[in-house]
Amino acid sequence: MERPLEGIRILDFGHVLAMPYCTMVLADMGAEVIKIERPGKGDDTREFGPFIDGESAYFHSINRDKNSITINMKHPKGKQLFLDMVKNADVVTENFRPGTMEKLGVGYEDLKKVNPKIVYASICGFGHDTVYPGRPGYDIIAQAFGGLMSITGYPDKPPTRVGSSIGDIISGLFTGIGILSALRARETTGEGQKIDIAMTDCIMSVLENAVARYFATGEVPERIGSRHPSLAPFDVFKTKDGWMVIAVGNDSLWERFCKGLGMDELLGDERFTSNEARSQHHDILKERIERWTTDKTTDDAVDTIGKLGVPCGPVNTVDKVVSDPNTAHRNMVVELPHDKLGSIKLVNNPIKFSSMNTDIYMSAPHLGHHNRETIKKIAGYTDEQIRELVDEGAI
Amino acid sequence: MERPLEGIRILDFGHVLAMPYCTMVLADMGAEVIKIERPGKGDDTREFGPFIDGESAYFHSINRDKNSITINMKHPKGKQLFLDMVKNADVVTENFRPGTMEKLGVGYEDLKKVNPKIVYASICGFGHDTVYPGRPGYDIIAQAFGGLMSITGYPDKPPTRVGSSIGDIISGLFTGIGILSALRARETTGEGQKIDIAMTDCIMSVLENAVARYFATGEVPERIGSRHPSLAPFDVFKTKDGWMVIAVGNDSLWERFCKGLGMDELLGDERFTSNEARSQHHDILKERIERWTTDKTTDDAVDTIGKLGVPCGPVNTVDKVVSDPNTAHRNMVVELPHDKLGSIKLVNNPIKFSSMNTDIYMSAPHLGHHNRETIKKIAGYTDEQIRELVDEGAI
Repeated sequence: MERPLEGIRILDFGHVLAMPYCTMVLADMGAEVIKIERPGKGDDTREFGPFIDGESAYFHSINRDKNSITINMKHPKGKQLFLDMVKNADVVTENFRPGTMEKLGVGYEDLKKVNPKIVYASICGFGHDTVYPGRPGYDIIAQAFGGLMSITGYPDKPPTRVGSSIGDIISGLFTGIGILSALRARETTGEGQKIDIAMTDCIMSVLENAVARYFATGEVPERIGSRHPSLAPFDVFKTKDGWMVIAVGNDSLWERFCKGLGMDELLGDERFTSNEARSQHHDILKERIERWTTDKTTDDAVDTIGKLGVPCGPVNTVDKVVSDPNTAHRNMVVELPHDKLGSIKLVNNPIKFSSMNTDIYMSAPHLGHHNRETIKKIAGYTDEQIRELVDEGAI
Repeated sequence: MERPLEGIRILDFGHVLAMPYCTMVLADMGAEVIKIERPGKGDDTREFGPFIDGESAYFHSINRDKNSITINMKHPKGKQLFLDMVKNADVVTENFRPGTMEKLGVGYEDLKKVNPKIVYASICGFGHDTVYPGRPGYDIIAQAFGGLMSITGYPDKPPTRVGSSIGDIISGLFTGIGILSALRARETTGEGQKIDIAMTDCIMSVLENAVARYFATGEVPERIGSRHPSLAPFDVFKTKDGWMVIAVGNDSLWERFCKGLGMDELLGDERFTSNEARSQHHDILKERIERWTTDKTTDDAVDTIGKLGVPCGPVNTVDKVVSDPNTAHRNMVVELPHDKLGSIKLVNNPIKFSSMNTDIYMSAPHLGHHNRETIKKIAGYTDEQIRELVDEGAI
């Protein structure tokens, strides 16, 4: 066994980001993911920029290690093909609007008649079981509705969307945990079940301290920029060529920090004698520290402060983090061969096992590239039957 | 079987947030999580505010559904007790600095001698296998180093930390997927393995489009606030009493939006005829749309625009999202009985199964509350032996 999830077969209607992210992680780890796309068009993200020679770099980053087949689910033979595949699959995944699969006659209740062992996982904005069945749930809507935007950003700026689609991604990760848990339970019960993930639930689940504080005190948490609510200096600071973070969590680090940087005068200043006092005067403190940091490059400042044993680090831009020595050491960027582009660079799977491989092994599929082999293998159709499906527009 | 992960036993050195978040999710789903804490003091977060009657609301929010035992790992009998428990456990989890477990003589290589089936998972800033073994990896350092801060926030403001500790949480979720995958592989191989999670790897893995864009074009992604890079209007907008998001992704929605809100004049304006044009003039467009939104409450504006079929939603503050009807409908806030506080409110697990329960069932443990029963059950010690451990300060 080379990869930990070998032997799990997933029929995946995932499109755009939330569910494709989930099945990407599982595919890297060895699950057989069969991406089911609309004939002719496929996943919308095939047409999302940025492009490399006409291929969507975005689509490639999320769909590596998957097989692609096309099915017209509105064609009776297309639907039958899918049901024939469900008989030999472990998991069905989708992130349509609620009700879409039911309208096609392939909701969980339909599928479990065909295969009671099937695990069915859905992701949508507000859940299948919801008071808002018709509401769309894009990432920005989930980040906003779930409360995360209200606590991200600076007080004098609007609520801030996280710079990547964290609402989709976190939902995908929770769904991955759900699928693996349901498969484990199936070992005991012999039966599958449905997992109903709402992006807004997932966002609420990652608010951590903000909700704990609200329930404990009734105070509604607000945006406070990058700083820590009760520790200081614990924030982002300007340097000569960029930005860095410094995380002084207690008085002994504070002393080491001041002495090490020749700011001894701050130690006697009563505005800075405790975390509470420093937090209260974080603005003045930041100004004073930036007088030191803006004079140094990020690398020099991180080096000097790091040597004092004070936690700190650079604010890396994307070019910096992908070229950091630790990124190479941990093989976090891989370059895959691609039949049209020659090769393509992607961020690798971050789950590192001591005795198994989870590295990306195959670039994203062309639309319907695996139709014939997959339909033969999983549905057991003959060449003749497959030709019919093509002729009739069912795949 | 009531919960999907019943039968999995986890010995958890997790402290603060990253690993405790992981084991919290697994505990909600039925895994038996035994939180191992330092005698007398316990997890640092027991002393993190906010407090309710002296109990940390923060600690409670992350450690529900777990058992607590105390072990002095530097005491030979404490260490032996732990090793005796490893013999009857499935998983060991920790988020110490690299090398800590090895120094105690309980690194993965030590543990697999005692139980070759053990799955061992670690989370730290830069990985156990790293070029930066001594570097601390707080959440803010991972968010900064991994590139997420550089793309979050407004261009005229500093890089922005996400308002919750997403670096810890995402690492916890990836680790959960890793643990369940390793347990599945063990069914086939009969052997455990080690999982080495770096928070900085995990942050890189969620940058999605930002990295795809950089690899495709060489352009270093920058902060653009809450708006979409290539669609408009797709952003946050001020209302009379707060904020809302509007997500117009294509020309037909744009037409519906303008006509529905009586902004027909914008349809003829050549600055707004395509997504590309609208993105280019997003500032002017935002000003125009805010002339409409600032005059309405968030609820009214969301209602009006939503009825047009245009995706939109409120930017909920924490009080709003926890009291939303869908939150109640999905049982996302639970109130648990607590022996000291009477009851405590927490955000529920977001993974909803059709035939199993994943709701929180037990409030967080007092320090060492489960010493006696757990040590008897898992290590098979007698009352006499346990008394000795207490007398000698080993637990």
